[in-house]
Amino acid sequence: ASGRVALVGAGPGDPDLLTLRALRVLQDADVVVHDRLVDDRILDYVRRDARRIFVGKSRADHTLPQERINALLVAEAAAGHRVVRLKGGDPFVFGRGGEEVEALRAAGIPVEVVPGITAALGCGAAATIPVTHRGAAQGVTIVTGHGKDGEPDLDWEALARLKHTLVIYMGLSAASRIADRLTAAGLPAATPAALIEKGTRPDQVLAVGTLGGLPALAAAHRMAGPALIVVGEVVRLADPARITAIARPALAVAAE
Amino acid sequence: ASGRVALVGAGPGDPDLLTLRALRVLQDADVVVHDRLVDDRILDYVRRDARRIFVGKSRADHTLPQERINALLVAEAAAGHRVVRLKGGDPFVFGRGGEEVEALRAAGIPVEVVPGITAALGCGAAATIPVTHRGAAQGVTIVTGHGKDGEPDLDWEALARLKHTLVIYMGLSAASRIADRLTAAGLPAATPAALIEKGTRPDQVLAVGTLGGLPALAAAHRMAGPALIVVGEVVRLADPARITAIARPALAVAAE
Repeated sequence: ASGRVALVGAGPGDPDLLTLRALRVLQDADVVVHDRLVDDRILDYVRRDARRIFVGKSRADHTLPQERINALLVAEAAAGHRVVRLKGGDPFVFGRGGEEVEALRAAGIPVEVVPGITAALGCGAAATIPVTHRGAAQGVTIVTGHGKDGEPDLDWEALARLKHTLVIYMGLSAASRIADRLTAAGLPAATPAALIEKGTRPDQVLAVGTLGGLPALAAAHRMAGPALIVVGEVVRLADPARITAIARPALAVAAE
Repeated sequence: ASGRVALVGAGPGDPDLLTLRALRVLQDADVVVHDRLVDDRILDYVRRDARRIFVGKSRADHTLPQERINALLVAEAAAGHRVVRLKGGDPFVFGRGGEEVEALRAAGIPVEVVPGITAALGCGAAATIPVTHRGAAQGVTIVTGHGKDGEPDLDWEALARLKHTLVIYMGLSAASRIADRLTAAGLPAATPAALIEKGTRPDQVLAVGTLGGLPALAAAHRMAGPALIVVGEVVRLADPARITAIARPALAVAAE
């Protein structure tokens, strides 16, 4: 049998942000194993006679443990199927794609990885927030806000020192702690910050304020995720026409 | 006139990594303003009757200064054309897209930003190097190796502390200095490192070794760029079948 697996990035939400390669591989699949984060409009590209297996991972809430997903991919490919493992964003940015590659490689299954537009860039484009910008950010760091006991294990002082754009995935529930840790590490509370919920989707929410005002911003919008936190001077470039809400007192502080 | 500009990311090289949205906008353009980094096979998607304007920026070597490019985009859109500004990778990752957005916004020209697969993720997928990986990298930092006097102005100590994956764009000519600065800042010379030249293209070169061995690796392959440097434990996951060359003495050091 010629079974194989493609780990495919579905991008940040907007189905038009799928790559040509991702579309082709998806339309060729016998079996599609997908997460909650993948938009229904992308699943519509799957062949009618293909099997869809929902593994329900919303990253924080693992319906099927990763080991079970790995075993499922190996078994389906070993049975001769063309399998697509479809993930929100990019398979290699907090997508646990590396673990799936290792499991498939150990089982001798051919694997292809099809990259996807990661949220930092998809949401950046949709909000007109350039993650790098001359004079404002010479680089970008992407981390996850998810961690043991609700606190990510990060080197806050190093992050505060970089003066880059800092993008935090899955950081909504830890927004308050993240703001505390970064300010304690020396990043001014007045540093511009944005919260982007459902980025690139028609119901995208773009809230702009400051690092110190992040928790209030999240609470005011009753955000429930998936949401992205962007911290850095580049937030000032966000397209005013696309901003859903500005935390005005917080911005006043920033302007001082 | 209904002139407008779309800043479009062409991705890392492979034309199949263009997004559906990028393809649509490109095929609809009256004028396409593009860089050297954009593959000819992507330019083949442009309508025959569209004008192509080559602005020859290979990032280091600006054939047309950025201010002239900004003015060109404004003038073409003001004349009522649908303009595409096509860039390698993503427009907002060292693409100076933010500056173009500011210039267009100041001139009252409508702008859309279409994200692209950035090299770190495109090359990561092509080399099977996951930029984040459980137990190996909790985040990724993307910086440019390009800077004044051939030396990027970066906080090396903070970068060395993060123990993330570090991806350096346009770092080939500064590879020796980058390796020196990072090791001086405390990152072990035995840290795995990769050089990826022409990533995602049929003639991709993937060289794997250590941070200390980077300059020798670049020299041995007579690399001329565009090339990407990846530093971090995740390099160990690179697909052995795709590695063009391994710096064996360097890897022996890493294995100690």
